[in-house]
Amino acid sequence: MIDRLIAKIQETKAPIVVGLDPMLSYVPEQVQRKAFAEYGETLAGAAEAIWQFNKEIVDKTCDLIPAVKPQIAMYEQFGIEGLQAYKKTVDYCKSKGLVVIGDVKRGDIGSTSAAYAVGHLGRVQVGSRTYAGFDEDFATVNPYLGSDGVKPFIEVCKQEKKGIFVLVKTSNPSSGEFQDRLIDGKPLYELVGEKVAQWGEEHMGASYSYVGAVVGATYPEQGRTLRKVMPKAFILVPGYGAQGGKGKDLVHFFNEDGLGAIVNSSRGIIVAWKQEAYAKYGAENFGEASRAAVEAMIADIRGALEGEL
Amino acid sequence: MIDRLIAKIQETKAPIVVGLDPMLSYVPEQVQRKAFAEYGETLAGAAEAIWQFNKEIVDKTCDLIPAVKPQIAMYEQFGIEGLQAYKKTVDYCKSKGLVVIGDVKRGDIGSTSAAYAVGHLGRVQVGSRTYAGFDEDFATVNPYLGSDGVKPFIEVCKQEKKGIFVLVKTSNPSSGEFQDRLIDGKPLYELVGEKVAQWGEEHMGASYSYVGAVVGATYPEQGRTLRKVMPKAFILVPGYGAQGGKGKDLVHFFNEDGLGAIVNSSRGIIVAWKQEAYAKYGAENFGEASRAAVEAMIADIRGALEGEL
Repeated sequence: MIDRLIAKIQETKAPIVVGLDPMLSYVPEQVQRKAFAEYGETLAGAAEAIWQFNKEIVDKTCDLIPAVKPQIAMYEQFGIEGLQAYKKTVDYCKSKGLVVIGDVKRGDIGSTSAAYAVGHLGRVQVGSRTYAGFDEDFATVNPYLGSDGVKPFIEVCKQEKKGIFVLVKTSNPSSGEFQDRLIDGKPLYELVGEKVAQWGEEHMGASYSYVGAVVGATYPEQGRTLRKVMPKAFILVPGYGAQGGKGKDLVHFFNEDGLGAIVNSSRGIIVAWKQEAYAKYGAENFGEASRAAVEAMIADIRGALEGEL
Repeated sequence: MIDRLIAKIQETKAPIVVGLDPMLSYVPEQVQRKAFAEYGETLAGAAEAIWQFNKEIVDKTCDLIPAVKPQIAMYEQFGIEGLQAYKKTVDYCKSKGLVVIGDVKRGDIGSTSAAYAVGHLGRVQVGSRTYAGFDEDFATVNPYLGSDGVKPFIEVCKQEKKGIFVLVKTSNPSSGEFQDRLIDGKPLYELVGEKVAQWGEEHMGASYSYVGAVVGATYPEQGRTLRKVMPKAFILVPGYGAQGGKGKDLVHFFNEDGLGAIVNSSRGIIVAWKQEAYAKYGAENFGEASRAAVEAMIADIRGALEGEL
């Protein structure tokens, strides 16, 4: 799957991923109205609205991008019905040939992490049969519990040829509270990065590992360090756009082969229709606004990479 | 809710919580057979089997215990159908008067943590209405992202009078890999514990905070330290029983008022029917075996506390 992700990035010339993180307030009125007319102002109505919203954005952008990253929290807030919309979104994106990174940030003690790994990346045994619960291609994983919380994911990834991105340095303002604290002179995120590199040796693709890392675009200097600490790890980079990261901040997340990173934008793409720059599309054509925002993001990142690499 | 948890602990004289973490292999044959007869060897069949298993254990133990802690991963591995069984379990336990601690270990950047908080502890807005997605009483939270990943949970807890338990020192063998690393001479878990104490000041019950901590029974010395670092935090203590913790290891997790901790056992209770000590009940009476295991656990912990406090 890491090789497929890389092939898709090379094919689209776009090291980007669209974050499908729908809040109901991001969904244009007409889409909400239609869903509520059918299902009422219910959880099922909300789930239908975000699913239709996602579908339109995917339809309008899927030829330009290699991957999507649905954030499961945004679906989980609507309970079971929301998670059904998550599953529908994952399945639909896969049917469109997109690589799906489930942004689930799971992680627990060994046997429990194994259950999460099975549910999101593997197949669960039921009597004589097996079933895939959510079946994303990649999942994000929280490292706070250490190796025995992460390795069950790697085991499932080996069986399924899938991958994970481990949280190393997150994009949020208070990520430094614990992640930046110095341990023997090195910040915690660097120790986690070293572990990611070690774990990654256990499950290599052709040129990169199936074990990647999450490093926020909002911390370009740390990205530069971590790029060296984990040379074979693909870096999933959130925080571009709405959170403040820009193309020029991103160059050091990439290797000299022009690969090694994939940059996520969520609000910047899916709520493009509310931004001044794309106002001309109007709420009716929110999918077209997203497409234009994807094109602008690709141009920004390509420009930055061509300038530097 | 923390006051209600404390009242329930005092009423039952049992500072324990039963971990409802069903693997399909824990469920006796006859329960599986019946579920598969109705739904086939499907995800729905597996979900029915674990739900019936849970229901029987809850029916046979609910008068002895204050709380349950379903581990969502064990349900999530069965996809949507599994999560429906989780929701059913949460609702049923609440209808039996039990406090429900959702062991979800969520945590993300601010707006995303807010969505998790709403989904598990709060109510989500849909048009002019609001709905509770999963509606647990407490949730466990991962602190790796720092304050802005935790505070959205506290905000929802304030509105709903609910609580969280933040992972501080987890029970698993490799928890020390990052959590024990020294920062200015103090282990990371202690810094996290200090933060829990600070966060907890924002949302106090009558004698304890709504912001608790998770500290593994397998690390009694660390428990002793953390008890002092977070005097007002209730400590949720996993790792008793199957993971190796014993009653006498637990005394330092409690305060001198005999409160301040609640000890979880999962496999030790729900798979009692497979243990030699409870073999006489047979697979047919697995609920009775769980009840006997609960009684033994309560006696062990009461004995240890009476000896020490």
